[in-house]
Amino acid sequence: MALTRPCVSLLYDVASPYSWLAFEVCDRYTKIWDADIKFNPFLLGGVMKATGNAPPGALPAKRVYMREDLARCAKHFNVPLNYIKDGKVLYTSLAAQRLLTAVSLDEPALLRPLSRALWLRIWSANTDIAQQESLAAACAAAGATPRDAAALLLRSTEPDVKERLRAVTQVAIDRGAFGAPTLIVTLPGGPPEGDLFFGCDRFDQLAAAIGQPWLGPDPLSNAASRPLSPGAEPHERQSRL
Amino acid sequence: MALTRPCVSLLYDVASPYSWLAFEVCDRYTKIWDADIKFNPFLLGGVMKATGNAPPGALPAKRVYMREDLARCAKHFNVPLNYIKDGKVLYTSLAAQRLLTAVSLDEPALLRPLSRALWLRIWSANTDIAQQESLAAACAAAGATPRDAAALLLRSTEPDVKERLRAVTQVAIDRGAFGAPTLIVTLPGGPPEGDLFFGCDRFDQLAAAIGQPWLGPDPLSNAASRPLSPGAEPHERQSRL
Repeated sequence: MALTRPCVSLLYDVASPYSWLAFEVCDRYTKIWDADIKFNPFLLGGVMKATGNAPPGALPAKRVYMREDLARCAKHFNVPLNYIKDGKVLYTSLAAQRLLTAVSLDEPALLRPLSRALWLRIWSANTDIAQQESLAAACAAAGATPRDAAALLLRSTEPDVKERLRAVTQVAIDRGAFGAPTLIVTLPGGPPEGDLFFGCDRFDQLAAAIGQPWLGPDPLSNAASRPLSPGAEPHERQSRL
Repeated sequence: MALTRPCVSLLYDVASPYSWLAFEVCDRYTKIWDADIKFNPFLLGGVMKATGNAPPGALPAKRVYMREDLARCAKHFNVPLNYIKDGKVLYTSLAAQRLLTAVSLDEPALLRPLSRALWLRIWSANTDIAQQESLAAACAAAGATPRDAAALLLRSTEPDVKERLRAVTQVAIDRGAFGAPTLIVTLPGGPPEGDLFFGCDRFDQLAAAIGQPWLGPDPLSNAASRPLSPGAEPHERQSRL
């Protein structure tokens, strides 16, 4: 079906803090841009393996810099992101990304609140996202009942969900992704492969590409009046199961 | 001596196309920001070796992306940057960085025009910057007489110039640099180590850090009225030897 307006597809993994920044920008601009913004969980580990890339924190000097950069970015983007000191367990996002994939298929309204709840766990409160009880807690924080959370966790282990995550990841790799976040922009009448943007620092160029305004990373609000913190309620109350 | 206003130190290497983008932004904002902006050639190869980092083009998927990203950035920053198809010889910037170091010591007014002339060779016209005749041609493009160019080329091989380039590079490494461009921002009354920014995509945050406005990458002019192209005259005519 031909596009009638620009489409921005965000490919993200909750293991990636820069993905969180891009996610919040995309979430805020759904209300501003005349564009379809799509939220697609993919598997960063799969992208890294396929391309031979390594996470920036693998290089000691980059890891030190990330601490400084992420602290500034948290403020600049108004996202309550904290650097993880020793996050080996926390980084294992396979189960979380499968859960998000299941949610994207079965309960799309829960996708954004649950994504945010997972980032608030791993990249703000520095708590685990690998164990089943952690994922259930994230579902609860996003507004799911215990019964719905259990059903989604079971669903996330089914073959078609695993295959969907693999397929989305492969599409990203085939288009040229090598890290996260990756944004693919397609325009009405434009080439089907679209434009690829890496990172959370090309939104001014991305906005220009879709002919929409760039009003900075937090355009909607007075930051003080709309806090985003681990204890805050999810933004999208309509998205509860 | 205590600072009386913010200081922005740009550490750059003409092998790095993203350094060129940052350089032009810094050059444009010298006329806008109430800050001292310092231009410091360093050796990217030395930084890479010391930190174990590799240039982004070393990873095939990143190399493909860079072509797409740099084409967009060239337009966004209004800098006539072209991607190098096969630039192994061109990338050897040791002689060029030594020459810039000699110029920074002996003829500081020539530093910016010569830096730009080198980038116009390597990253716009895709011509060599490793050979002596190439460096002499860049000096001529920057406004130096053949006699002055020859003197500077000779000077660039002297021990104190080599040592100065090594020392600037080591200071950057010690502060946490792992690539180029690197910007170090120090504030009056702030910590002496300052804030470190990597890349050409944090200028909005850097401007906030120094309390100065961010008006986009090309704030001064109507782009069409002030072309920057290989054949154009250098901007700073007063900087001729």
